[in-house]
Amino acid sequence: MRIGLLGCGTVGQAFVRTIAGQGETVARASGRRLEIGPILVRDATRARPGIAPAQLTTDPQDVLSDPEVDVIVEVMGGIEPTATYLRQALQGGTPVVTANKQLMSRQGADLLTLAETSGTELRFEASACAAIPVIKVLRESMLAAEISAVTGIVNGTTNYILSEMARAGLSYQEALAQAQALGYAEADPTEDVGGADAAAKMAILASIAFHTNVHFDDVPYEGIDGVHAEDLELARDLGFVVKLLGVARLGNGGISVRVHPALVPERHRLAAVMGPDNAVLLESGTVRQIMLVGPGAGGTETASAILADVLSILGTAKGSFLQNALVDAGRPLLRPDQTESAFYIRLRVMDRPGVLAQIATAFAEAGLSIRSVIQRGEGEAARLVLVTHVGSESRMNAAVAAMRDMDEVRSEPVLLRLLAEDAA
Amino acid sequence: MRIGLLGCGTVGQAFVRTIAGQGETVARASGRRLEIGPILVRDATRARPGIAPAQLTTDPQDVLSDPEVDVIVEVMGGIEPTATYLRQALQGGTPVVTANKQLMSRQGADLLTLAETSGTELRFEASACAAIPVIKVLRESMLAAEISAVTGIVNGTTNYILSEMARAGLSYQEALAQAQALGYAEADPTEDVGGADAAAKMAILASIAFHTNVHFDDVPYEGIDGVHAEDLELARDLGFVVKLLGVARLGNGGISVRVHPALVPERHRLAAVMGPDNAVLLESGTVRQIMLVGPGAGGTETASAILADVLSILGTAKGSFLQNALVDAGRPLLRPDQTESAFYIRLRVMDRPGVLAQIATAFAEAGLSIRSVIQRGEGEAARLVLVTHVGSESRMNAAVAAMRDMDEVRSEPVLLRLLAEDAA
Repeated sequence: MRIGLLGCGTVGQAFVRTIAGQGETVARASGRRLEIGPILVRDATRARPGIAPAQLTTDPQDVLSDPEVDVIVEVMGGIEPTATYLRQALQGGTPVVTANKQLMSRQGADLLTLAETSGTELRFEASACAAIPVIKVLRESMLAAEISAVTGIVNGTTNYILSEMARAGLSYQEALAQAQALGYAEADPTEDVGGADAAAKMAILASIAFHTNVHFDDVPYEGIDGVHAEDLELARDLGFVVKLLGVARLGNGGISVRVHPALVPERHRLAAVMGPDNAVLLESGTVRQIMLVGPGAGGTETASAILADVLSILGTAKGSFLQNALVDAGRPLLRPDQTESAFYIRLRVMDRPGVLAQIATAFAEAGLSIRSVIQRGEGEAARLVLVTHVGSESRMNAAVAAMRDMDEVRSEPVLLRLLAEDAA
Repeated sequence: MRIGLLGCGTVGQAFVRTIAGQGETVARASGRRLEIGPILVRDATRARPGIAPAQLTTDPQDVLSDPEVDVIVEVMGGIEPTATYLRQALQGGTPVVTANKQLMSRQGADLLTLAETSGTELRFEASACAAIPVIKVLRESMLAAEISAVTGIVNGTTNYILSEMARAGLSYQEALAQAQALGYAEADPTEDVGGADAAAKMAILASIAFHTNVHFDDVPYEGIDGVHAEDLELARDLGFVVKLLGVARLGNGGISVRVHPALVPERHRLAAVMGPDNAVLLESGTVRQIMLVGPGAGGTETASAILADVLSILGTAKGSFLQNALVDAGRPLLRPDQTESAFYIRLRVMDRPGVLAQIATAFAEAGLSIRSVIQRGEGEAARLVLVTHVGSESRMNAAVAAMRDMDEVRSEPVLLRLLAEDAA
C-alpha cells in the first residue's frame, strides 16, 4: 500500500522513520506492506535523512493526482492551502489521515461530510493528544455510552509549567524558560500557554463526544499566563492543585465547552497527572469514568497515531492480525524461573547472634544481592524483612530453600515481588 | 439488526436493558436499529423484566440456526457447551461477540482462526476489564507499536480488598467480608482472590500485545490470600503500596506473563488506582506509556463493551455516525455566562474595617454564596482569597464588576474556577 505525504516536518519525518523501522511488524501484524510514495514539501532541494530526493515534490498534484496512492497523510498543518488539498483528495475518493487540529476544529464537520458523501474516510486521531487513542475510544468504544462530560489535561506544555511551578516553587516565567530549554515549549509559546491549542483539541473531542458540531470559535479559552505562584500555594493550602483544564459538559439544556485554569481537588485522579503528560476523563452514565493517560505530543508518538489510523482505513483490524499472531514463533514463553525481579521477603527468625549473617550468606551463595534489611526484635524471635536487588526467580528459589533448611528460621518466608522500576 | 443472545444472567439482562434504553442513541449515532431476537436460557419459565417470554428458549438451535440473527452475543460463560455453540455460529458465518474470559484465554486462538477462515468476526472486548477498551486499543491503536510490557491491575475485587487493608488497617478477612457486603466480591471469592481471574485476563491481553498465543495454563498466578496487614505496613514504610499485578513483559529472549502481589513504588501511576477500579499500563518504545483506567466489572459496564463490539462488527464507525451528528439539533451550545462553577477569587484590598463586609455584600447581591475566605494583612493592604459555592458565570461577572468599582479594591481580581466536585 502506497502512502502519499503532504508535509515533511518533525511529524512527517518521524512517520517516514516509523514506516521504515516497523515495516516488518506492520506486515506481520496486518498482512500489508506500507511504502511512502510522493512527498509534498516546500523545498525539495533540502536533504532529509532516509528519504530519496526523487520522492520529494513541490507540486501538490504529484501527490493528490497519483493514481498509485492508496492513502494520503497530511502533516503540513495550517488551514489553507491544506483544506483545498484535502477536499480534492476526498472528492476523488482517496482516504485521508490528518494530524491537523487547527483544520479539524474549524472545518472538521464539512470535511467529514465530504468524506462520507465521497464514499471514503477521514481519520484524525493524531489531531488530539497524539498517541492517546481518545478519538477511537470516543467514536467506537463509547459510541452509545451517552457521555456526560469530557474533562482533560490536553496540553502538555502548560501541564509541565504548572507542575514545575508547584513542585519547585518556580515563577511562571522561570518554569516557561525551563520548559523551552527541555523542548516542552516552543520559542513562541503563545498557542500553548494562551489556551488556543487546548481549545482546538476540546472542540474536536466535544464534537465527537456529544455528536454535535463544535467549532473552535465556540470554545472560550483562557491560558495560564495569569496564574501566579501565589495562587498555586493558596490552592495547595485549600487542598487543590491548579491545572489547565478543557471541560466539555452536557447540562442546563445544552453543551458547554471551555478551557481555563482550574482548581482540582488534590485527591482527584486528574491531579496526579504531572509533567508533560496528557489525560482525558470520559464520564458516562453507563460506564462511569474511563481515564486515558499518556504522552500528548512528540513526533514519534504522533506518527504512531497516524499509522494506527492508516491501518484502520486499510482494514487490518479484523482477523488477519490475530491469524498472523499465531504463526509468530520468534517469542517463546519463558518459564517463571527464567524471569527476574527484585524481591521482598519477610520471615521470623530466632533472635540470636549470627542469624542475620547466616541468612545473608544464603542470599550471597544464591547470587542475590540485598538492598535493604529491617530487623525488629519480638521477644525471643525477631522479624526480618529483606529487599533484594533484581535477580532471577531461580536464585530466589535457591535462597528460600536454604532459609527453609535453617533451624533459626521459624516461619515460612513471605515472598512478594517488586514492580520493576523501569516501569515507573 | 437482530441480535441472538446466549445466556441471560446479570450481564445478559443489562445488555437487554441497554439496547432498550439506548436504542435511540444507537440509531442516531450509527444509523442502525438493534433488536434482541431469541435468547437461550436454562429455565424459560422464569420471568425476566423487559423480556417477552416468547423470546426465551432452551434450545440452542433456536438462536444458532435462526437465519434472521445478524450477530450472536455470548454471555452464558463456561467452556462447554459454550465453545461448541460458538464454533457452530462462526462456521456458519455469523459474527460473535463474547464476554467469556475463561473460554477466550483457553481457546481464543482457535476460535479467532475459525472466525477468519469462515470469513466472519469474533470480538471479545468485554472479556477483559469490562468497559475499559484495552483490547481495541491494543488490537487497533497499538497494532504496530512494538509493545514491551503490559502491566495491569485487572481484578477489582482484590484491588478493593488491598486498598481497604491499607487505608483502614483491616485484616484480609475483614476486608474480604466488607467487599462481599458491598457486592465487590462474590460469596465464593476463590477465582478473584486466588488470581485465576486476573490470569485469564492477562493471557488474553498478552496474546494480543505480543502477537503470540498465550494460554491460561501458561500464566503462573498467585493470589492475595497470603498478603498480611503487616506486609502492607512494612511496604508503606519502605515507600511502596501492595497491588495484585498482572505483568506481561518482552525480554530475556521471550515473553513472561504472570500474576502476583507486588510492591509498587508509591509515586508510580498504578499506585494511585484505588478501590474496585482496574488500570492497564501499556509500554512501547514508540509511544512510551499509555494508561487506561476505569471500572473493570459490572453488568452495565460489561454490556456497554459488548454493545461497542456489536457496533464495530456492524460497521458504524465510519461516516454515518458523524454525518448523523451534524443533524442533531437538540443540543445547543451554551454561552459562557450560561455555565456554572465554583470560583476562587484572589484580590488585594485596603486593610480597613468594613472592607470584607462590603465585598461579601457584593457577592450576596450577585446571588453568589461564599464557601471560605482567607484574609492576610500585608501592611496597609490585605490579600483576600474567596472560594464560592457553585453559581453561574453571569453572577460571578456581576460580583467582579462590583468589586472593580470599589475604591478599596486595589488589584484586578484573579479568577480561577474549581473543577466540579461531581467529576471527582
